[in-house]
Amino acid sequence: MPQDSLLGPVHKAVPEGDNRERLVCRDCGFIHYQNPKVVIGAIVTWQDKFLLCRRAIEPRRGYWTMPAGYLELNEGSEAGAKREAWEEARAAIAIDGLLAIYDVPRLSQVQIIYRAHLTEPDFAPGEESLDVKLFAWDDIPWSALAFPSVHWALHHHRDSVASGDFSARGRVG
Amino acid sequence: MPQDSLLGPVHKAVPEGDNRERLVCRDCGFIHYQNPKVVIGAIVTWQDKFLLCRRAIEPRRGYWTMPAGYLELNEGSEAGAKREAWEEARAAIAIDGLLAIYDVPRLSQVQIIYRAHLTEPDFAPGEESLDVKLFAWDDIPWSALAFPSVHWALHHHRDSVASGDFSARGRVG
Repeated sequence: MPQDSLLGPVHKAVPEGDNRERLVCRDCGFIHYQNPKVVIGAIVTWQDKFLLCRRAIEPRRGYWTMPAGYLELNEGSEAGAKREAWEEARAAIAIDGLLAIYDVPRLSQVQIIYRAHLTEPDFAPGEESLDVKLFAWDDIPWSALAFPSVHWALHHHRDSVASGDFSARGRVG
Repeated sequence: MPQDSLLGPVHKAVPEGDNRERLVCRDCGFIHYQNPKVVIGAIVTWQDKFLLCRRAIEPRRGYWTMPAGYLELNEGSEAGAKREAWEEARAAIAIDGLLAIYDVPRLSQVQIIYRAHLTEPDFAPGEESLDVKLFAWDDIPWSALAFPSVHWALHHHRDSVASGDFSARGRVG
């Protein structure tokens, strides 16, 4: 495979019939249409506790997160949230509703976060996790959370339960 | 530009460190990671009427839709819904909340649909519309709606207003 960094869809050009610059390959003509990515995840509870995973991979290895990851092709968003809970925490979850949508335009990312609960209190670290635990609110490792959206989602969850207002929250991060 | 159809990222292979088949280019080594696409849109009202656009483009040219389209890179979902309302209906809108998330895994599409209202009763067809109109519920051209999600969103909007329950709806289409 050639190592020349000018190969591949790395040249900016406006394709015919389009109105924005895209990355094109001058060699094979491929146009690389880039789109925002969808992250799906869930705040998962068991009784009054919250399921968090300690990341085994970068970025933020060693920090705690809710089960979440990129939506795959031909996958629904609830199905994706269940898959991530299984992959990261070997947890079977049931979806209770939509918690929030977080926009991170800087990263071209839309996060769709559900409220969910464990269907039974069984879990274990998946390949991408060092550890998985249930935390009471006051025991959550706030200073060791992996991403701002983990903070937002935990607090939005608490607000929803406290107020009884389960309309979806939004935030631009 | 070579016309050989075997050029470009058209070969299936599992990249090193990955666990799924991706499309790769044997010529330049580019890996084409494909992801689901995000559609953003809004059910836009003015008093008790609904803003719909008659499509000037395929698919479903001549049929009626809510303002909606693909989220762009580095764009938030609410900002995207406002942009589409402007592009398709020359309408300035204010977002009232999230109406629904529709998953269409068959098309690898996630639709994020907001509730919104016109900030003033001014609108006109944009480039992608033949016509734009406000319809009372009973006058909506039900048999000439462009997509199933337009039906779903109009009915979910009506249900939300009637019940006072503004939690986000979901549906897998």
